[in-house]
Amino acid sequence: MTEERVEDDFEEDYALSGDLVEQVLAATEAQDAAELTALLEPLHPADIADLLEQVDTGERREILKLYGDEFDGEILTEIDESIREEVIEQLPAEVLAEAVRELDSDDVVDLIEDLGEPQQEAILDALDDSDRAAVEQSLTWPEYSAGRLMQREVVTAPEHWTVGEAIDFLRAEDWLPDQFYHVVLVDPFHHPVGYVTLGKILSSRRETALNTITEDSFRTIWARQEEGDVAYAFNQYHLISAPVVDDDDRLVGVITIDDAMNVLDEEHEEDILRLAGVGDESAISDTVPETVRQRLPWLMVNLFTAILASTVIALFEGTIERLVALAVLMPIVASMGGNAGTQTLTVAVRALATKSLTESNVWRVIRREAMVGFTNGAVFAVVMGLVAWFWFGTPALGLVIGAAMVINLFVAALAGIAVPLALERLGADPALASGTFVTTVTDVVGFFAFLGLAGVLLL
Amino acid sequence: MTEERVEDDFEEDYALSGDLVEQVLAATEAQDAAELTALLEPLHPADIADLLEQVDTGERREILKLYGDEFDGEILTEIDESIREEVIEQLPAEVLAEAVRELDSDDVVDLIEDLGEPQQEAILDALDDSDRAAVEQSLTWPEYSAGRLMQREVVTAPEHWTVGEAIDFLRAEDWLPDQFYHVVLVDPFHHPVGYVTLGKILSSRRETALNTITEDSFRTIWARQEEGDVAYAFNQYHLISAPVVDDDDRLVGVITIDDAMNVLDEEHEEDILRLAGVGDESAISDTVPETVRQRLPWLMVNLFTAILASTVIALFEGTIERLVALAVLMPIVASMGGNAGTQTLTVAVRALATKSLTESNVWRVIRREAMVGFTNGAVFAVVMGLVAWFWFGTPALGLVIGAAMVINLFVAALAGIAVPLALERLGADPALASGTFVTTVTDVVGFFAFLGLAGVLLL
Repeated sequence: MTEERVEDDFEEDYALSGDLVEQVLAATEAQDAAELTALLEPLHPADIADLLEQVDTGERREILKLYGDEFDGEILTEIDESIREEVIEQLPAEVLAEAVRELDSDDVVDLIEDLGEPQQEAILDALDDSDRAAVEQSLTWPEYSAGRLMQREVVTAPEHWTVGEAIDFLRAEDWLPDQFYHVVLVDPFHHPVGYVTLGKILSSRRETALNTITEDSFRTIWARQEEGDVAYAFNQYHLISAPVVDDDDRLVGVITIDDAMNVLDEEHEEDILRLAGVGDESAISDTVPETVRQRLPWLMVNLFTAILASTVIALFEGTIERLVALAVLMPIVASMGGNAGTQTLTVAVRALATKSLTESNVWRVIRREAMVGFTNGAVFAVVMGLVAWFWFGTPALGLVIGAAMVINLFVAALAGIAVPLALERLGADPALASGTFVTTVTDVVGFFAFLGLAGVLLL
Repeated sequence: MTEERVEDDFEEDYALSGDLVEQVLAATEAQDAAELTALLEPLHPADIADLLEQVDTGERREILKLYGDEFDGEILTEIDESIREEVIEQLPAEVLAEAVRELDSDDVVDLIEDLGEPQQEAILDALDDSDRAAVEQSLTWPEYSAGRLMQREVVTAPEHWTVGEAIDFLRAEDWLPDQFYHVVLVDPFHHPVGYVTLGKILSSRRETALNTITEDSFRTIWARQEEGDVAYAFNQYHLISAPVVDDDDRLVGVITIDDAMNVLDEEHEEDILRLAGVGDESAISDTVPETVRQRLPWLMVNLFTAILASTVIALFEGTIERLVALAVLMPIVASMGGNAGTQTLTVAVRALATKSLTESNVWRVIRREAMVGFTNGAVFAVVMGLVAWFWFGTPALGLVIGAAMVINLFVAALAGIAVPLALERLGADPALASGTFVTTVTDVVGFFAFLGLAGVLLL
C-alpha cells in the first residue's frame, strides 16, 4: 500500500498500458485476428480509440482490417477528429451501418457534423427513418450550439402527476435513454416547468405530487445558446442535466453534464493551443504535412513582427556600431518585456474566459496590472542596472538599461491587459492572437527605449 | 430571435451583470441592508461569490457587514481561495458556524484544508460531533487525493436485495444526500461489488434482483488515488459517480462527476498559468503585492537565462562591431526559435496531460517534431534568406541567416519535445518550467549559430 500501488493501479485500471499496445501490434503483425480480438474485447471504447490514435497509419489500417467486424460504434465517437474520416473510410459499409445504428442521436450528430458530404450520406443512409429524421433535425441548429449538443430523448411527465404515476410510466416504457437524472415536468404545451431528481422520486411516497418535490436548480437552456456558455452554466451552477427549449420555449431535448464536461475540456484545450500559436485542432496523430500546415502560419506572423522589431534596431545601427555592448544587452530588455506581457495576458485571457474580468472590475484590474508592471520594472531595473554596470564597467549603461526596463515592463503590463480586452470587444477570441500583438509591442518598445536612451545619454 | 437574444439571455440568466454589481455597490454605499439583501437573495451562491471576488477589499468588507447575517455556507465553498480567509475572518462567529453546519462533509473538507490552524479550529468547533469526526477522518487522506474529494454519504444496498426492497429502504431513510445517481451494492464486508442507476431501479419491476441490472461501467476508485487521475477517469469513461474504497477495498465514500469536473477545470487552469510562468494560484482578486510575489520569481529566472544568452552574444562582440547588420538580424533567429519551440512544447505538455503521448508513440512523435522543425526551418530559411539579402544587399548574409534558421528551428523542435519529456520522467510538472528551458536553448543556439556562422563565412 505505497505510492507504487497508485501508479500500478492506475496503469492497470485506467490508461492504456505500453505493454498492451505492443501485444496488439504483435498480434496485428502476426495477422492473428482471434488474439487481437481477445486483447481489444475487454477495453473501453475510449481506450480502443486512444490506441488507434497512438499507432501509425499503416498499423491502424492493419488493426482495422483484422478487427473491423467487431468494431463498436462508440469507438467512432471517442476517436479524435483528425483520424475519424480515415477510420470511417476503412470500415466495410455494413460494419459502419451496424456501428452507427447503436448510437444515441446526439452521438451520431457529433460524429457526422465534421465529415465530408459522401460520408455523411453513408451514415445517414444506415439509420432508421425516425433516427435519420432526428439527426437531420438536430443538424438544423447552428454549429457549436446547445441544439447540437443535446440528446433528443427526454423523460417527461405532465406537471400534475404523482410519484406513483411516474414510476408506473417508467416501468411501462421501453425506450428510456441509457442515462437520465431528472424527470422533466411539462405543461400541456410541452413547455418545461420544473424537474425532479430520480433520487427524490425514489425516496418519496407514491401519492406525493411531483410538483411539490421539484429542484431549485431548474434552468432551461435555449437551443441556440453557444456551447461554451452551456458548459459555463453547468460548471458555475453544478447542474447535472438541463432541459433544452426551442424558439417557442418548447422542450426539444436535454443536455447532461458529461457533454458539458467534454465541451469544457475542448475549450480549455483550444485556449492553451491558441495561446501557444498552434492550430487549435492539432493532435498527436497528425502527420508531418498536417502539423507543418497548422504551425507555419503563426510562425509566418511571428516572422513579420520580428522583422518589424528589427527595423527598430536598424534605426540605431550607428549607435550600436559605436557601443557594441548595446547589442549584447538589448535582447534582455525585449525578453523581460515579452515574458511580463505574456504573464499579464494569460491571466487576462483566463479571466475573460471564466467571466471574472467584467465591466465592474476592469479598471481596477488595469490599475493593478500597471502597478505590478511598474513594481517589477523597478526591481529589475535595479538588478539589471547593477549587472550592466559591473559587466561593462559603465554606470551610465546601467542607468540606461534600468530606465528601459521600467518603461518596457510598464508597457508590457498595459499591453498584456489592453490587447485581450480589445480583441474581446471586437468579437475575436482573445486567446488567438494576443501573444503576437503583445510581444510585438514589447519588442518594439524595448528596443526603442533602450537604444534610443543609449543614443541620447551615452554617446 | 436573433443573435441579440443569445447575448441578452445569457447575461440575464447566467453571468453576473455589470448593472447588478453597480446596484449592489450603491446599496452598500447607502448602507441599505434591506435593498442589498433583496438584490443578493435571488442570486446563486456561485454568483454571490463571483461578485465578492470582483469588488475591492473595502467594498467587500462593507457588503459582508451588511449582508453577513444572511450569509450562506455555499458561498464560502464557491469563493476563490485567495479571498476565502479574508471573508471567513470578517464573518461573525455564529454566522460562520451556521453557514458551515449546512454543508456536506466534502464541502467542509474542501473549505478548511487550505485555511490556517485557528480558522480550521473555529470551523471544526462549529460542527456536530459526528460531522466533525467525518471531516477529520477525510483530512487523514493525502491532499489532492480521492479521499479528500469524495463525499462520505453513500447510498448502499446489500447485493441480494430486489428493486422493491431498495425503494422501500429509500422511502424510509431521511439522511439521503442531495444528489446521488447510483445505489452501490455491497457484500457483507462492505466491499462494493457493483452499482445500479436510479433510472434502472425506477424502470424495473419490484421483484427484479438488483444484481441483475448493474452497470458495466462500474469502477472503484482508491482513496489514495491522485485527484487528477480521478478526473481523467471520469472524463475518459464518462462516469457519473464512482465508489471510493480504502486500503482494504472497503467502501468509504463516493465521488460524483461535478467534483471531477471541478478538478479538471482547476488542472487546466494550472496548466495554462504554469505554461505562462504565472504562479498557479493567481486570481483576479489578488492584490498588487500578491501579484508581484507570484510573478517576480519567474521573471527572475527569465532574467538569468536572458543574461546567459547575452553572454553568447558577447563572445561575438568583435564580429558585430565589424558587421552591425548582425545585431539587427539576430533577434529574428532567436524569436523564431522561441516560437517554434513553444509550439512543440505546448503540444507535448498537453499530450502528456491527456495521456496521449506514451511509450508506444514517443519515438514517432519525436521523429515527427524533428521533421516538422526541419521543414519549417527550411521554409523560413528561404524566406528570411531572401529578406536579408535584399535588405542588406549581401547574398552571403542571407545564406548565414538561412542556415542559422534551419539549425535553430530543428533544435527548437527537439528541445520542445525533449524538455517536457525529461521533466515528466523526473517527476516534475512539465508545464511548470518547460518554457524557460526551451527558450534558453533556442536563444543560445540561435545566437551562437547565427553569429558563429557569420564570423566564419562573412568576415
